[in-house]
Amino acid sequence: MRDFSQDHQWLSLNTATVRKQWKLDQIIDECARRGIRAISPWRDQVAAVGLDAVARQLKAHGMELSGYCRGGFYTAPDNAGLRAALDDNRRAIDEAKTLNAPCVVLVVGALPGALEGKAQYKDIVRARNEVRDGIAASLEYAREVGMPLAIEPLHPMQAAERACVNTLEHALDLCDELDPQATGMLGVALDIYHVWWDPKLRGQIERAGNAATG
Amino acid sequence: MRDFSQDHQWLSLNTATVRKQWKLDQIIDECARRGIRAISPWRDQVAAVGLDAVARQLKAHGMELSGYCRGGFYTAPDNAGLRAALDDNRRAIDEAKTLNAPCVVLVVGALPGALEGKAQYKDIVRARNEVRDGIAASLEYAREVGMPLAIEPLHPMQAAERACVNTLEHALDLCDELDPQATGMLGVALDIYHVWWDPKLRGQIERAGNAATG
Repeated sequence: MRDFSQDHQWLSLNTATVRKQWKLDQIIDECARRGIRAISPWRDQVAAVGLDAVARQLKAHGMELSGYCRGGFYTAPDNAGLRAALDDNRRAIDEAKTLNAPCVVLVVGALPGALEGKAQYKDIVRARNEVRDGIAASLEYAREVGMPLAIEPLHPMQAAERACVNTLEHALDLCDELDPQATGMLGVALDIYHVWWDPKLRGQIERAGNAATG
Repeated sequence: MRDFSQDHQWLSLNTATVRKQWKLDQIIDECARRGIRAISPWRDQVAAVGLDAVARQLKAHGMELSGYCRGGFYTAPDNAGLRAALDDNRRAIDEAKTLNAPCVVLVVGALPGALEGKAQYKDIVRARNEVRDGIAASLEYAREVGMPLAIEPLHPMQAAERACVNTLEHALDLCDELDPQATGMLGVALDIYHVWWDPKLRGQIERAGNAATG
């Protein structure tokens, strides 16, 4: 097995991890100083500094994005909310294009309002249907502008509050359903923090690899 | 759909829910007074009152068990620990026989010591192998004495501490592997608290039903 630990080619900093220490422009400078060549920034951090300023700064440093955090949160108690979510995802995709990100990471959402302790409905099947339809709609726009989407399954302990897609298998089933030709415009993002417990993890990673290369 | 809510035939009290209020003998009396015809008692509650005394009291009330809580916790850092777990499960099965329980519920265990905050190893694949081998060994004895075992999948948030079987699918895969003839001696116990999030729940419940009736 290769030892990747010294190989910065595979290192990217999720900028949420240092959001309390620095604003994004300083994070980028500090990463550049340390030879960290890629980051995965969050939308609010980008907005705080300014989209175009961040894009220029990344270009000046030759720094790449490994992903853009985050789209998703598709569920809502009414049609106006569902539409607002789609509009917001469209903006996230546009920002990702400006930043030259390889993908927008989707934390898909769950029971609307649950994250604030006030679930507006409690039907996880409904949430999953809204998520599927939301990804399908975003994917249409993502194809138009050429920005891949990556579904991130979250740990089942967050199934009510943050994401009702909780296994890699479920995420890949969505990919198969919404992108049956495996065009590369819809994929997955994996965080071992969320998926370590899954007994099907290895097999589903192999499935994802086969879909990507097959 | 039938309304079961008034039908005490399907009501059983897991006696852990009132363990702080009463000892088991009083729990049984209070259940009988209220027309609750079945309980699922815990081993420590039985031991505190005495196995034979509990068996007599249940008989006097004509009260049934819906299950016996609990066997399992098969994992250990060494062979002595693995053997001790098997011995303990054998005792649980014997107790369940004395109480005329329909099954012993298995909370299978996970990383040994993790429940006490000191995991003695951190290899969930090893834990799952030890669990599979432990259930297989218990099943041999369970067959001898005629006491079914029921694997209870716990929520993935307890995958490290209490049970490394976290989905109904995984539990049913174990049943297929260890009891390929579907003899009825190995099954599952479902608690909606643990499995509500699972997108495959409905399909796997159907699978379980087909295995039970097929």
